[in-house]
Amino acid sequence: MILTLTPNPALDLTWEVAGLRPGSTHRVDAGVARAGGKGLNVARVLHAQGHDVLALATVGGASGAEFAADFEASGVPHRLLPVSGATRRSVAIVDTDAAEASVLNERGAPLDDDEAAALAAATLRLALDATSPARVVAISGSLPDGFGGDRVTALVRDLTAGGARVIVDTSGPAMLDAARAGAYAMKPNAEELAAATGLEDPVAGARVLLEHGARLVVVSLGAEGLMLVSRAERGMPIRARLPRVLRGNATGAGDAAVAAIAAALQLPVDFDADTGEAATARRDLARLATAWSASAVLAPLAGSLARNHRDLESEVAVTPHTPEDPA
Amino acid sequence: MILTLTPNPALDLTWEVAGLRPGSTHRVDAGVARAGGKGLNVARVLHAQGHDVLALATVGGASGAEFAADFEASGVPHRLLPVSGATRRSVAIVDTDAAEASVLNERGAPLDDDEAAALAAATLRLALDATSPARVVAISGSLPDGFGGDRVTALVRDLTAGGARVIVDTSGPAMLDAARAGAYAMKPNAEELAAATGLEDPVAGARVLLEHGARLVVVSLGAEGLMLVSRAERGMPIRARLPRVLRGNATGAGDAAVAAIAAALQLPVDFDADTGEAATARRDLARLATAWSASAVLAPLAGSLARNHRDLESEVAVTPHTPEDPA
Repeated sequence: MILTLTPNPALDLTWEVAGLRPGSTHRVDAGVARAGGKGLNVARVLHAQGHDVLALATVGGASGAEFAADFEASGVPHRLLPVSGATRRSVAIVDTDAAEASVLNERGAPLDDDEAAALAAATLRLALDATSPARVVAISGSLPDGFGGDRVTALVRDLTAGGARVIVDTSGPAMLDAARAGAYAMKPNAEELAAATGLEDPVAGARVLLEHGARLVVVSLGAEGLMLVSRAERGMPIRARLPRVLRGNATGAGDAAVAAIAAALQLPVDFDADTGEAATARRDLARLATAWSASAVLAPLAGSLARNHRDLESEVAVTPHTPEDPA
Repeated sequence: MILTLTPNPALDLTWEVAGLRPGSTHRVDAGVARAGGKGLNVARVLHAQGHDVLALATVGGASGAEFAADFEASGVPHRLLPVSGATRRSVAIVDTDAAEASVLNERGAPLDDDEAAALAAATLRLALDATSPARVVAISGSLPDGFGGDRVTALVRDLTAGGARVIVDTSGPAMLDAARAGAYAMKPNAEELAAATGLEDPVAGARVLLEHGARLVVVSLGAEGLMLVSRAERGMPIRARLPRVLRGNATGAGDAAVAAIAAALQLPVDFDADTGEAATARRDLARLATAWSASAVLAPLAGSLARNHRDLESEVAVTPHTPEDPA
């Protein structure tokens, strides 16, 4: 079983407008409201691909009621922890003329001590369930105030000690905290990694996370594919990419990569071992993550893959990463 | 009692952002959700000014649940008719740097035949209640598909036949329909009037509405105040305005004018009679509507007046309208 945790989910509201004119009034069709948040996207992808997944998130307020109703309709198995703050909203105004989106992301309400403790306890209870333990736990997205620092550090430690492989996809200081706590895999993008480590070179940044305690670091590079660095002695960075650029909706591409990493980490192999088997597993993981990520770009909604992801997988080239590669 | 009808209400969502950059992602504080719609604003103003008012609106979907909860909290007496379509959303993104708002107004779901009939029946039942009949009914805002044309014509006729004075503040062809049905007063702004009648001159446009069957036409002219035209033989247009320009939030200024007209029309005077009493009543109505409208500009939220509206009333100049007046 794969458990995804979304500590700061969002109700995603999307409107389309033909030509956004700042300062003006526009008449538009009804927008679309959807339960969102990075961990939900990860769970949606995994569920659609037939994996046994459970999504855990917080929920609160009127926006939370709408969030819960939409997520229920999705059919993805989930648990929602009621909290006092309203589920944040994320607003996307898609300008169909300019083919660009203007996005407002609410920060999200803080969790109080009791709520943060309850969320950590629920994560541990579900992940370490005796009859259906989680082999992999993916913690995705921003952390609300009250759930960073010590709280996420302890959670990653406890999950790891309980036998789960933890993937963390977050940004800011929490990225370093999660690495220190022994996250099995981390999936920053190049900008997030540079911001968290202060190093522009993604290889150097990824090695900081490995030195802190992470075992695998997958750096997503947008249309340039991704780079994987592991703790294995001969685990020089590898690079996976499609030989062509895809056009589409990049929102959720990183989440599809996390879904692929989670799916791959179910395999009972030490991914950072210095063996041929581990090296093959790392290459397969990088290939799958690149294909799912690219496939998500071709799908209209975040949290879904286009049907050609198996074809894309066969197109992905996995090579040693060289410094000349654009990053 | 004054009844307000809002056939196409909205859940108003407002976010503030310091510098809206189209095509970019912005991190923002939680937005504010508020039960909105022109008739609700009219009712809020009247309720705050101590008038006996009842607001009737439709409600549906998850956005409707949030709408209903917020309106309940306002304390304004109201009835909500459940309908199958979701309450539309209206989105305002206030750019605090540029001091301007970008607005998206959803069109709103159509009413089916049963829903339209039920809304008309509820309006008549509440307005013509034997123990507490409505002296004035204000129908405000856009009409959803299924509630225009014949439906609103019959409703204005039935309300008028039942003894209520009907104020209509809408746009498009429904404006002419309402005039034909004998609306007691109409409150277009200059642009809406020109669009509905095809006449640029607001005096000429207002006279078209009078010829169709309306008794009073109040044309709101923004910072230039308003113009009132009546069917009284000597009822030449009068003009009301403040001698100074106010800065603030013009959203809801027209609704405050409608609230003032509704308050004034409770007086048992034939406002379009050719008498001195009626002429005085028309001037008082124009003065009150100008003062409340200006006061709404100074208030932060639509549906409320600043506390100085009585002082503003004494500042309003009411004069014969001359063609040299800017319109």
